Amino acid sequence: MTKRITLKDVAKQAGVSYQTVSKVLRGQGNVTAETATRIQTAVQELGYRPNVRARNLRVQHSHLIAYSWPPEPPDVYNPILEKFLQSIIEATEALGHHILAFSWQQKSDLAVEGYRDLIQSGQIDGLILSSVEFNDSRVAYLMDLNFPFVAFGRSNPEWDFPYVDIDGSDGIQQVTNHLLQQGHRRIAILAWPETSRTGEDRLHGYYEAMRQANVNIEPEWVIRGENTTSVGYKMAEQLLQLTPAKRPTALICLSDTMAIGAMNAAQNIGFVVGQDIAITGFDDVPLIQYMRPPLTTVRQPIWEVGQRIIELLFQAMAGEISLERHILLKPKLIIRQSTEGTVTNE
Amino acid sequence: MTKRITLKDVAKQAGVSYQTVSKVLRGQGNVTAETATRIQTAVQELGYRPNVRARNLRVQHSHLIAYSWPPEPPDVYNPILEKFLQSIIEATEALGHHILAFSWQQKSDLAVEGYRDLIQSGQIDGLILSSVEFNDSRVAYLMDLNFPFVAFGRSNPEWDFPYVDIDGSDGIQQVTNHLLQQGHRRIAILAWPETSRTGEDRLHGYYEAMRQANVNIEPEWVIRGENTTSVGYKMAEQLLQLTPAKRPTALICLSDTMAIGAMNAAQNIGFVVGQDIAITGFDDVPLIQYMRPPLTTVRQPIWEVGQRIIELLFQAMAGEISLERHILLKPKLIIRQSTEGTVTNE
Repeated sequence: MTKRITLKDVAKQAGVSYQTVSKVLRGQGNVTAETATRIQTAVQELGYRPNVRARNLRVQHSHLIAYSWPPEPPDVYNPILEKFLQSIIEATEALGHHILAFSWQQKSDLAVEGYRDLIQSGQIDGLILSSVEFNDSRVAYLMDLNFPFVAFGRSNPEWDFPYVDIDGSDGIQQVTNHLLQQGHRRIAILAWPETSRTGEDRLHGYYEAMRQANVNIEPEWVIRGENTTSVGYKMAEQLLQLTPAKRPTALICLSDTMAIGAMNAAQNIGFVVGQDIAITGFDDVPLIQYMRPPLTTVRQPIWEVGQRIIELLFQAMAGEISLERHILLKPKLIIRQSTEGTVTNE
Repeated sequence: MTKRITLKDVAKQAGVSYQTVSKVLRGQGNVTAETATRIQTAVQELGYRPNVRARNLRVQHSHLIAYSWPPEPPDVYNPILEKFLQSIIEATEALGHHILAFSWQQKSDLAVEGYRDLIQSGQIDGLILSSVEFNDSRVAYLMDLNFPFVAFGRSNPEWDFPYVDIDGSDGIQQVTNHLLQQGHRRIAILAWPETSRTGEDRLHGYYEAMRQANVNIEPEWVIRGENTTSVGYKMAEQLLQLTPAKRPTALICLSDTMAIGAMNAAQNIGFVVGQDIAITGFDDVPLIQYMRPPLTTVRQPIWEVGQRIIELLFQAMAGEISLERHILLKPKLIIRQSTEGTVTNE
């Protein structure tokens, strides 16, 4: 896929503001003939294609927005799905539309096919994507097609499409800083496979906080695996069997799911979580505060993500180009007993 | 609402089989003129109205099935929603339709209004109901309208509409029998408010098992409240403060959510769960096996519920009347450490 040419590129090349380009292309605004010509030239040179669909050239609207999400593996549950669904349903209905829920396809060609069917049959007016990854073929397809969509999550940095995302890097940076303040220096992280866009973003926050605090990271401390409780269990076991000099005093987990496994492993080995070993999660799932000990974690503003996505999507469907269409929301550190112990460093 | 007259009633009054009535009314089958007349007379006397919508009189189909569910309160999460959604989405798409997810209204008049809007605007071909209660106004409305729907759950016993439900009474009966086998006699139950159809059904299994085992139930042992962890906590506290002669040795909770609260209460008081006190849940939520101790609970066959609902719904939409349209599926007892202790009764 070639990079999609946006209004921004046209504005840059024509040397005028974004708003001016947008107005001129919609036949509005008040510019000199010279400016108008510059804009038209830029449009032609760059090969900019306006989003025809968004221009209401289509007669029939279905008033349906489609959404799909990956099914839960057996030992995991999706901690944010219900709230996200309620949020997008509420926001969509407030604007006179409905949500169509369709099935997830893991293979990227099948996924694109599913999206194509829905779009070409005219069944939907817009799309919401989640679980976006690097080189996501759905994103590439929809950008090429100029079909209105908004993603929950980012893909390749150079791809310019509307998204709302949680700043996972900031979340793990908050966690790492909290552990550093408790005196921890040997901090390990239970991360996801490198193909996970969200996982790499969160992991980055750990590297950043450790770098800023000038704390060394042993190669053994960054360990990767699937997002399940049993994998979290095995990773923690492995980390806690390192020699005392290398053995971490704190385990950062990229999800509550993994953290629960890690807590169980530590307890089975004989560690008192919160005293001998600090463990943290990510998500703040409803039951996690009732674990023993309650888990320090990161809470995501899911309701707001849903609301902002629908805002952006309706702008895209109306052919408006939002200036603020790359939205990053900050998550919140929730401190509980699993990190209450402090470490003294000689 | 008057009771809806069904094909069954017509068959009974005409003294013929259900299938015969169904065939004759669809202009099929091979019956004597006398039988046909008897059926027509019964139809008129009873005022039976065939489901006109199901007879494909409507020209345009949306190929959409609508579903709505109550949002999660803050400290609870819906343990079965994701799997149920995936099941109905998969089954619906296999039949060339899609699921439209719409917002839940707590107030019954607003709920009915939401359903009416979707139906009258022709946006949907069928409906799935869940969280069905006694005197459910949505069920009454849809039965009166003869609009194709299937419920996940039962309502008033005398209302004849297609449903699929989990046999919660059987589930709690299995739990109670398991506790009785472990030697428990002082068994309490943390139940839901009397208005809950599902709660009353589950509670019935407790009464039934205790009655069959000839074990006395103290009035204090049946305690009711909302389905939250904090309510479960308070109820367990109250039960464990009864005098030793009355204090239960086992607490049956109608959900894992309540059981987590009860476990925390018991542990905070100083009981060792699984030894001093047995605690059980219902749902088998993904994290519950990692609680300390892991919780004995009841697993519901949610995937199958979704599949059977869509089967019944497509029969209803096609105007077919399924003979087996009241489906009760058995849940499965999952025994874990929270009930491993045995009790000796002198």
